Amino acid sequence: MEDPIEMALAEIRFGPDGLVPAVAQQHDTGEILMLAWMNRDAVRTTLAEGRACYWSRSRNRLWRKGETSGQVQWLRELRLDCDGDAVLLLVEQTGVACHTGRHNCFFRAIRDGELAEIAPIEVDMTTTGKARM
Amino acid sequence: MEDPIEMALAEIRFGPDGLVPAVAQQHDTGEILMLAWMNRDAVRTTLAEGRACYWSRSRNRLWRKGETSGQVQWLRELRLDCDGDAVLLLVEQTGVACHTGRHNCFFRAIRDGELAEIAPIEVDMTTTGKARM
Repeated sequence: MEDPIEMALAEIRFGPDGLVPAVAQQHDTGEILMLAWMNRDAVRTTLAEGRACYWSRSRNRLWRKGETSGQVQWLRELRLDCDGDAVLLLVEQTGVACHTGRHNCFFRAIRDGELAEIAPIEVDMTTTGKARM
Repeated sequence: MEDPIEMALAEIRFGPDGLVPAVAQQHDTGEILMLAWMNRDAVRTTLAEGRACYWSRSRNRLWRKGETSGQVQWLRELRLDCDGDAVLLLVEQTGVACHTGRHNCFFRAIRDGELAEIAPIEVDMTTTGKARM
């Protein structure tokens, strides 16, 4: 049987920067937790270790989500879209996903003509490390 | 009151190519329908018209989702993530989202060591136009 990791990699169309956008979704609630980026090594590491590993564009290195904060995303399933240029990670989120201490990163919404913050800070990240790491 | 469209645009960090990834999610079920790209004009058009408008990288022009297929995504809410470098569109999907005729684009999953197709074709797109348009 072909290696499923290499099989998946062959189907992903990485961009000119070697990256593909990856959406992390809580597997049971459907909550969209965050959007991050993966290169080939991040996909390999995610599938091999069973936890989300991204490519940090700001630090220019692999970033195992939760490596500092403990806010690990355990992988339940990896999906590809029709064109292979986007990845969906169904995960079990440990704690909160956002570096601000909110449960997910999409907490700003246009409502009533304003950009409103629609989710509370659940964890004081100043005392728990950096969630994005 | 400040124009909410310009306010949102000021908070979005478009990439060097002028684009930001946008995830479309069915507002009531949580289903992730697709990932596409928006430039400033796509964000403006989406908010002004109340339906998802993307930037087609393949055709290099604005793409009002459903303009040919009728598979319009009516906007319920636009959200930004913590860093402003990703957009979430909560939408009401008309028909199916994927150009293959499946309800969403993420129908390929790694299961049992294989890349499996996990969703049926619901609409024969050869007779209904191009869903991606």
